[in-house]
Amino acid sequence: MKLLEERIQKDGHYIGDGILKVDSFVNHQVDPILMNEAGKEFAKLFMNFSATKILTAEISGIAPAVSAGLHLGIPVVFARKNKPITMPDQVLLTLSPSHTKGRTVELIVSPEYLGSGERVLIIDDFLATGKTIEGLIRLAEIAGATVVGVGALIEKTFEEGRERLEAMNIHVESLARIESMSEEGIFFHRS
Amino acid sequence: MKLLEERIQKDGHYIGDGILKVDSFVNHQVDPILMNEAGKEFAKLFMNFSATKILTAEISGIAPAVSAGLHLGIPVVFARKNKPITMPDQVLLTLSPSHTKGRTVELIVSPEYLGSGERVLIIDDFLATGKTIEGLIRLAEIAGATVVGVGALIEKTFEEGRERLEAMNIHVESLARIESMSEEGIFFHRS
Repeated sequence: MKLLEERIQKDGHYIGDGILKVDSFVNHQVDPILMNEAGKEFAKLFMNFSATKILTAEISGIAPAVSAGLHLGIPVVFARKNKPITMPDQVLLTLSPSHTKGRTVELIVSPEYLGSGERVLIIDDFLATGKTIEGLIRLAEIAGATVVGVGALIEKTFEEGRERLEAMNIHVESLARIESMSEEGIFFHRS
Repeated sequence: MKLLEERIQKDGHYIGDGILKVDSFVNHQVDPILMNEAGKEFAKLFMNFSATKILTAEISGIAPAVSAGLHLGIPVVFARKNKPITMPDQVLLTLSPSHTKGRTVELIVSPEYLGSGERVLIIDDFLATGKTIEGLIRLAEIAGATVVGVGALIEKTFEEGRERLEAMNIHVESLARIESMSEEGIFFHRS
């Protein structure tokens, strides 16, 4: 998606340790118009996958997931990292390592909103090692749902999450694919 | 907003202790079509306030805030409850008591995205006691920005947050106003 690549070039910053800072339009400040365009693009890419629900992880997955849900006309469930008091005692839970947090986080979904028979599209802001997305896939599987695909705004191809997901026979789409980052700049993958 | 009131009647649950569970369309599962309509309604209510930025709090404020930002054509900043490593060392921070969490949480915004001269519209999922929103107002004020209004999806009028905010001369709008909740049902405020 040209619009997103251009925005990453303009406002993204490589801050070392494999981390791309996109806080000005994705992770802290959000550009709603860009997110809406990303949602349209996800809807176009996954329109024939008969997804019945989108699954994402709080916090930064919410904006792109809700935009995609709007354009696909399906609800979005965001996995919580802390169990709120409104959630039943019996939950779906898995552990996932977080690179940016430097520790393991819980991903929790209520069985009220994710069940067998659902066709789940996973949407997240980043696809890096794929560990968070693997956690979401495990949650869908525990629920008895089928994962029909994975969509990410930004992929860091050098962290090989795509290879890991494709080895599980999962269809992966990302809107911007970063091949390398350094002080010299951000370089996109051209296939 | 009739659509939201009807949805609360249909899918909202009073679970005691003053807590309305709307996890099936706001707080865990999100209905993107309803959120989009709420965003349009916020845009209509605040179109003449010349807001330059929306401020909300993660997690459940993000979906309504991004929808409102789309229809107003302005960026959204969500205050973080944990400081991510992409954030500078010097941040805007305030403390806010959380009723549903039963403890105090931090609300953190990077000065990169909230500064003097901004006209800030605060959007959140709930207006109850107004404590979280007061925290967001403090952040805007520390940044030197002007708060032009507050919009909430759901107001619990009996917790008197509106009175607290209006005493600060802040314009408040909410899309559904709940006057009382009990085992007998959920009752809306009619002005």
